Amino acid sequence: MKEDKGIKQINFGSGPAALPPEVLLQASEAVIDYNQTGLSILEIPHRGNLFANILEESKALVKELCELNDEYDVLWLQGGGRLQFCMIPMNFLGAQKTAGYVDSGHWADEAKKYAEYYGNVRVLSSSKESNYSRLPDFPKNIAQDISYLHVTTNNTIYGTQWGSLPAITTPLIADMSSDIFSRKRGYSNCALFYAVAQKNIGAAGATLVVLRKEMTKNIASTIPPMLNYNEQLKKNSVLNTPPVFAIYTSLLMLRWTRQKSIATIEKESIEKCSLLYNEIERNTLFTPIVTVKEHRSRMNICFAANNYEIEKGFSDFCNQHYIAGIEGHRTVGGFRFSLYNAITVQQVERLVSVMQEYEAIQNSKLKTHNYTNG
Amino acid sequence: MKEDKGIKQINFGSGPAALPPEVLLQASEAVIDYNQTGLSILEIPHRGNLFANILEESKALVKELCELNDEYDVLWLQGGGRLQFCMIPMNFLGAQKTAGYVDSGHWADEAKKYAEYYGNVRVLSSSKESNYSRLPDFPKNIAQDISYLHVTTNNTIYGTQWGSLPAITTPLIADMSSDIFSRKRGYSNCALFYAVAQKNIGAAGATLVVLRKEMTKNIASTIPPMLNYNEQLKKNSVLNTPPVFAIYTSLLMLRWTRQKSIATIEKESIEKCSLLYNEIERNTLFTPIVTVKEHRSRMNICFAANNYEIEKGFSDFCNQHYIAGIEGHRTVGGFRFSLYNAITVQQVERLVSVMQEYEAIQNSKLKTHNYTNG
Repeated sequence: MKEDKGIKQINFGSGPAALPPEVLLQASEAVIDYNQTGLSILEIPHRGNLFANILEESKALVKELCELNDEYDVLWLQGGGRLQFCMIPMNFLGAQKTAGYVDSGHWADEAKKYAEYYGNVRVLSSSKESNYSRLPDFPKNIAQDISYLHVTTNNTIYGTQWGSLPAITTPLIADMSSDIFSRKRGYSNCALFYAVAQKNIGAAGATLVVLRKEMTKNIASTIPPMLNYNEQLKKNSVLNTPPVFAIYTSLLMLRWTRQKSIATIEKESIEKCSLLYNEIERNTLFTPIVTVKEHRSRMNICFAANNYEIEKGFSDFCNQHYIAGIEGHRTVGGFRFSLYNAITVQQVERLVSVMQEYEAIQNSKLKTHNYTNG
Repeated sequence: MKEDKGIKQINFGSGPAALPPEVLLQASEAVIDYNQTGLSILEIPHRGNLFANILEESKALVKELCELNDEYDVLWLQGGGRLQFCMIPMNFLGAQKTAGYVDSGHWADEAKKYAEYYGNVRVLSSSKESNYSRLPDFPKNIAQDISYLHVTTNNTIYGTQWGSLPAITTPLIADMSSDIFSRKRGYSNCALFYAVAQKNIGAAGATLVVLRKEMTKNIASTIPPMLNYNEQLKKNSVLNTPPVFAIYTSLLMLRWTRQKSIATIEKESIEKCSLLYNEIERNTLFTPIVTVKEHRSRMNICFAANNYEIEKGFSDFCNQHYIAGIEGHRTVGGFRFSLYNAITVQQVERLVSVMQEYEAIQNSKLKTHNYTNG
């Protein structure tokens, strides 16, 4: 990553991810003076009206964007996905039951491993045997002893994604950390869904949890309040001091999302990933990693270079062109470009032209080489 | 609180608390462009060099400020004090042992209640019978079956504070959320101490935990990584995406603290609380709540008004003079002025003059009243 110029980079990182310039500007101003109150957003009391308004507006926007009725409530928590990996089995597994997990990759598997600390777990489908380069089947005819089914909707490392989620009778719990608000998908088919803020929602430090209120009815009172969804709901996300700045930045991003609309975001998302996948498939230097087209993620586009020299060369070339956050996960290698909501179509067009420019340079090198040796 | 003018208020709130203007300015600038990298601080990757440098510098500063050797390590976690209330007994209580708690007020009692979810707990001393208006005795001759002793060094609600902590053989665990870095105190007498960031450290969303590495030797492997100090240490606070902005703001505040020095901060802290307590005791309208002078907190100064009319009137008067965050906790009432590290001597002098001005107005009203009725 280029670190010496102060020229704005295009950040294709998988998270913490890019945010729109107007969101960054408003967040930056609020650190000095929040809405002309004479107080920094970092100083406002979390039990006063200023924060109560932020909280209520953010909750209303989440419900509106996900088309949810009043059977649902919204929580802002801390601790990221991993604390949800703990809280979900702690609150919902139950002593006589078994938790069902769909194993679509590293994060789905981590969620499952955490559940094993708390009770019985069964993997209902997995694509591990194909190194997660495709989605597993969505489980059908789920057994009665399964207390909930956990899915990870988008698999950042491998670049696969579930589209719409089906309506099932078993409570469906979805980790939407890396694709929430990027498409319509039947959010109300979930009993609970959650997402870390640092991809499509806002800034690292806040975790969004949306759940059907009836889910909290049978939570054991032996779970301490901080880790108990029921107690957190009763205290409306201010059981203790919340991450005020991260939630406020999320509110700014939620306003941006509503103004744009999920429909427009989804349309642009399709356009962005088509642009990039078309170029990967056309470009003679690169090969896509996910070959099953209908399993491809619109959020994370993973591809390999033809050889190590091309990989290193293209990485440096991106660096020189102020394109950041492009490395594939260490377990997969190659490149990963994350096209979260804040990334524009123009930025993807810029990336495509950089890929073409790099190919042209390589081809001309090759010709010179052939000529010299010819 | 005055919300309509954009004039900088003096924030005496108990937390999220005031931060120095220079810290706010640097934090604000980093939201647009972090150190001329072309990336916002909200976008930088948490596993890259940029964040690794923030983490290492912050850890070194904490150890330097607390005069700790390499037997100690530093963690940045999420979840505030309450998640520590869970993790401490979860990690350190042990099945055959009893956790010892000193009950010096609401937060100390909350910490104890959380421990009761995990095992045997004994309160070794308490000042509950005096409504926590004084400190309890510090426990002596602690029994062998006590696995750790938990104390809350500063009691924000009541305005009491422990000074230096004694060296004891039982592992001493201290919640220093509201007075860390405000004084020298023998930090190395603690086996573990922790503090939420939103008072003397930085911004809400980060929790500082400092512990002797040997404390993690016997932690049960049945505790999932996210809640396990041993696993968090192994992963150097990046087991998952940390709250980057809150940690960076804390680093800015740590640099400010080092530049000023703990010695100077402590000297000013004594000056600030003397100024305010002298005025409370002199002023005919107010009465201090903590009568045992050596138990008084330098951080939170609590006092009552002579009657409801004075209370309401002074509250409005402060509001008119851009003085915010002054209400006492609902369980104690009256006023609470928090003099955390970012509050200057000049700001306390300003407060004292506002108190004197208000007294003069009340006295002149009284004279007019007496004259009218005379």
